[in-house]
Amino acid sequence: MRDATLLYSGKAKTIYRSEEPGLLIMEFRDDITAFDGGKKGTMKGKGTYNCCVSTYFFRMLESQGIPTHFMRVLDDHTLAVRALSMIPLEIIVRNIAAGSLVRNLPFREGQVLNPPVIVIDLKDDSRHDPMLNDDLILALDIVSAAELQTIKQTALRINEVLKKFLSQKGITLVDFKLEFGKSDEQIMVGDEISMDSMRLWDTHTGTSLDKDVYRFDKGDVMITYRTVAMQITGGECEEVK
Amino acid sequence: MRDATLLYSGKAKTIYRSEEPGLLIMEFRDDITAFDGGKKGTMKGKGTYNCCVSTYFFRMLESQGIPTHFMRVLDDHTLAVRALSMIPLEIIVRNIAAGSLVRNLPFREGQVLNPPVIVIDLKDDSRHDPMLNDDLILALDIVSAAELQTIKQTALRINEVLKKFLSQKGITLVDFKLEFGKSDEQIMVGDEISMDSMRLWDTHTGTSLDKDVYRFDKGDVMITYRTVAMQITGGECEEVK
Repeated sequence: MRDATLLYSGKAKTIYRSEEPGLLIMEFRDDITAFDGGKKGTMKGKGTYNCCVSTYFFRMLESQGIPTHFMRVLDDHTLAVRALSMIPLEIIVRNIAAGSLVRNLPFREGQVLNPPVIVIDLKDDSRHDPMLNDDLILALDIVSAAELQTIKQTALRINEVLKKFLSQKGITLVDFKLEFGKSDEQIMVGDEISMDSMRLWDTHTGTSLDKDVYRFDKGDVMITYRTVAMQITGGECEEVK
Repeated sequence: MRDATLLYSGKAKTIYRSEEPGLLIMEFRDDITAFDGGKKGTMKGKGTYNCCVSTYFFRMLESQGIPTHFMRVLDDHTLAVRALSMIPLEIIVRNIAAGSLVRNLPFREGQVLNPPVIVIDLKDDSRHDPMLNDDLILALDIVSAAELQTIKQTALRINEVLKKFLSQKGITLVDFKLEFGKSDEQIMVGDEISMDSMRLWDTHTGTSLDKDVYRFDKGDVMITYRTVAMQITGGECEEVK
């Protein structure tokens, strides 16, 4: 089904054209990067665990009536997804202050944010993904006011679904990033929902269960990714040898 | 009336306690700074022109029912102002893309922003005044949602008043910064409204008529400040020899 045409290669995923109109192939690679590309590496099996967890969450969201680009699994690190016209925004939902929020603003690490805070960055590597506000998003004509409203409401609904599910697994959803796209004017979740795009803490110990293990050399990244993938999916992910 | 107590000294103004309860002395100094304090200088007469223009605009806003901290003129570079509990936000209203908007985001210089764009920065020198969004402002508990609404609506009303007035003088109001404070729960305009806090272009030639002349060495700063002050106030400002 996959033809030779590479459409886009990002930091950790590659998108190929498929022979089926409106359908793309999304490959989760084993590459890992952090700090705006300043730290790079490869971890065997990482793509597979992120692919498996993303699939699990996309199916969960679909079952809750939240449209995503997920269509079907092709192999353990490759999905068939709907071709969306991607919206160049990173929607970050934050339940607890951590990361850049603590580095750049007067929040203290671990501070509960209730209601959750949405931060929206422009997806633009050359400008280092600058933060926007609603006025700027509309002035840049990236989405309409109604679409921005839909995106925010959907992001908050997804947050409620994921937060509740993860808390039952003993995992605290600190924050996570979403990307959206449009298909026939319908707004859908695109990209991935994985340990690369979520900040997760063990609810009891506070240990990082996500890319922060790589960012800050907090332990064995692959043991963390495998353990979390198994915990989230109830063992559905295949162990990568 | 002025007692010896210096309360606060900023980059270009000094605030003193007064003998009258609830009243402060605001002195406009001749110091000028730019680029987050990276460029500094002193320009004889600058404080006087900014004081005179601020007074003119404060009176204009008051006459339109927009409350400000202005009480009375003490001398050519000093005002008596109401003591406000200052809100640590910089409210920037933009009618035309210029400055940081063009440097950091995909706007082109001179692009008309209609409706105007409001950008709100945290007033925090140690953090280099980071931009906030509404969710962050509320999470930081800086103002309530209702107060934020009042601040934005007031800023847009002020923009309409100033933009219309200046356009009749052949001056384009590109953008400007406001600071607000509270007195008995009422939100009032504080700080100053001057060539230091506005970006002004000659409508016909596009020439800078504000601190950009200093920032980017575009000409004689004091000739510009004096000319603009005279133009805005219809010659009310005293010429500084």
